[in-house]
Amino acid sequence: MGTVPLLTDETAAPEARAVFDDIRAKRRTDYVNNFWRALANDPPLLQATWDRLQQVMAPGALDPLVKEMVYIAVSVANGCSYCIHSHTAAARAKGMTPEMHAELLAVVGMAAQTNALVHALQVEVDARFKA
Amino acid sequence: MGTVPLLTDETAAPEARAVFDDIRAKRRTDYVNNFWRALANDPPLLQATWDRLQQVMAPGALDPLVKEMVYIAVSVANGCSYCIHSHTAAARAKGMTPEMHAELLAVVGMAAQTNALVHALQVEVDARFKA
Amino acid sequence: MGTVPLLTDETAAPEARAVFDDIRAKRRTDYVNNFWRALANDPPLLQATWDRLQQVMAPGALDPLVKEMVYIAVSVANGCSYCIHSHTAAARAKGMTPEMHAELLAVVGMAAQTNALVHALQVEVDARFKA
Amino acid sequence: MGTVPLLTDETAAPEARAVFDDIRAKRRTDYVNNFWRALANDPPLLQATWDRLQQVMAPGALDPLVKEMVYIAVSVANGCSYCIHSHTAAARAKGMTPEMHAELLAVVGMAAQTNALVHALQVEVDARFKA
Amino acid sequence: MGTVPLLTDETAAPEARAVFDDIRAKRRTDYVNNFWRALANDPPLLQATWDRLQQVMAPGALDPLVKEMVYIAVSVANGCSYCIHSHTAAARAKGMTPEMHAELLAVVGMAAQTNALVHALQVEVDARFKA
Amino acid sequence: MGTVPLLTDETAAPEARAVFDDIRAKRRTDYVNNFWRALANDPPLLQATWDRLQQVMAPGALDPLVKEMVYIAVSVANGCSYCIHSHTAAARAKGMTPEMHAELLAVVGMAAQTNALVHALQVEVDARFKA
Repeated sequence: MGTVPLLTDETAAPEARAVFDDIRAKRRTDYVNNFWRALANDPPLLQATWDRLQQVMAPGALDPLVKEMVYIAVSVANGCSYCIHSHTAAARAKGMTPEMHAELLAVVGMAAQTNALVHALQVEVDARFKA
Repeated sequence: MGTVPLLTDETAAPEARAVFDDIRAKRRTDYVNNFWRALANDPPLLQATWDRLQQVMAPGALDPLVKEMVYIAVSVANGCSYCIHSHTAAARAKGMTPEMHAELLAVVGMAAQTNALVHALQVEVDARFKA
Repeated sequence: MGTVPLLTDETAAPEARAVFDDIRAKRRTDYVNNFWRALANDPPLLQATWDRLQQVMAPGALDPLVKEMVYIAVSVANGCSYCIHSHTAAARAKGMTPEMHAELLAVVGMAAQTNALVHALQVEVDARFKA
Repeated sequence: MGTVPLLTDETAAPEARAVFDDIRAKRRTDYVNNFWRALANDPPLLQATWDRLQQVMAPGALDPLVKEMVYIAVSVANGCSYCIHSHTAAARAKGMTPEMHAELLAVVGMAAQTNALVHALQVEVDARFKA
Repeated sequence: MGTVPLLTDETAAPEARAVFDDIRAKRRTDYVNNFWRALANDPPLLQATWDRLQQVMAPGALDPLVKEMVYIAVSVANGCSYCIHSHTAAARAKGMTPEMHAELLAVVGMAAQTNALVHALQVEVDARFKA
Repeated sequence: MGTVPLLTDETAAPEARAVFDDIRAKRRTDYVNNFWRALANDPPLLQATWDRLQQVMAPGALDPLVKEMVYIAVSVANGCSYCIHSHTAAARAKGMTPEMHAELLAVVGMAAQTNALVHALQVEVDARFKA
């Protein structure tokens, strides 16, 4: 269904296959999901994306679960079906309960609504909100 | 600059003025920001939005600071300048440090990038991601 | 502030000046707003846009005021500040009352919210909704 | 296919089941569409959304059919497939003819185009368009 | 699956059928893709869209392949699945190689990321960037 | 006006200052634009963004000017004012003529319009467009 084929371990180039193996090792699973198999059509983009994702999603000042929920929020606003599915699954694997999911959705819906109201009203930014 | 005037305590209808007073009381401040003053042109919408916002942003399964960061993420994806300013200020008031802000932005940027890549590649959702 | 200069009657090419004159004649005003003055940097695009806009916004099965409100709704969802300002002004000139504006905004906000919820939930389309 | 299961009358909580019954009664139909069955995973969000939708979409200064068409316009701009399907069906049920649908689409397409042109040109808002 | 039926040569109105024939002649193919068959429900919109598309996509200061890649970029940002599929196919037919496709995607992803960062940071436009 | 201060050579951390110097050297200019000065609040994000941007925008299978125009197209669709300004300036510096700019805008506008029409019509992807 995609605009490029999903590459298997056999059809991917060795550099892409190496990234698949790294994904398997880091995630302790045999499964490599479709996003990586599509990106494998461009091994340098696959490598750069996988490297950067690990840095960005690592524990830091923010908890990895919080990062996953932020990822879901952006993906919802951009209407990215695949991303919503994969990061909702990832958030659950990191401990997102149904209650947390429900509150996340309520916030995302509220934000979308007030974003639209603010756009329609063209509200000027209060001086005190500027850095 | 807006499409409606920002109403003051004097120009707002009594129902809107009552919401202003409730905002002041709940937030323990004298300041009512422009979003509410613009919404005051439609008192029932002002009331409904204020009521719902309090419910949605209250502490629950998610921390109020996490909710503010999710709110920023959605507002960034929707390009709502006012909302980004006001919720970044709110998140700071609730304890968002520069390190947390930096990680939030890195996640938001990464999500925007992979959302675009997934759209371009039209990646099929893996069966295991479906509920 | 734009990426191209706003052309005046003196700096615009004759083909663009002719469109300015047609705008003045059709709208019965001396004022040509900035959108057209920016588009004038590309006279064929100016002409094509003005011609098409007249056809699309003319009275038909839908009332011109309804069309203006639909235009506002799209512009809000796309976050186009100029478009929101200009079409809100146009809708008022065609009879949009504050009550109509308020209801329009409530619908736009509600739609943005449920759009986000549906994206987050990835709801399957009911068979009965398909043509 | 969703990120949450679609709840049936049997699997939904009693509070959600009560909303289903209210939807049936108000709409005079036995059918409860998937959006509500997905939202039922969070009964308070289901209740809040259903309550608010009824208020917002009720006859007022704007006709319910105009409201449905505005809803379609926002949903198109946000690329919400489910919402476009369900509100197009709702608009037809409220009397939208093929001619009205065609004009709606022409306006939505025109607005999307000029929104993009305005963004590209970064047109400054005319002083006369500000409230 | 659409909100309107896809019209065949038999079910389309004569004006729409004439556009189908023109598409076949200009593209030297017997195949008329679904976009046109959906638009055929509104023959004047079909005609206007086909006419305009030919003008806009014709060789000029920009190469038709560059135009197709720009079209893909916009469609990705707007999350239009059909458009991404059809214009990726069109770009390939006009000579887009896998290397070009890969670089296009890297740019689109980078732009989406920095667009989000700029929104989050609310960066002021440098004076030197203004026309 | 931003959500973070624009850092100067004096207020930026040494790691950020080093990136500023690299930008000056690579671009052969003394000027460091506001985007980098805002990103400097998070030196690792500044470094990662600058490194990646150089790779992505370098000459390759696509010409750097084509890449700038694709960047503009995405930024227009995402409504990123700063990005539109800065990449339009960059494209001009790389040789974009007014004629090329005009054609770029015509394609971007056309794509936005047909994206909206396709969303409204919910056109099914033709089998032949799938990889």
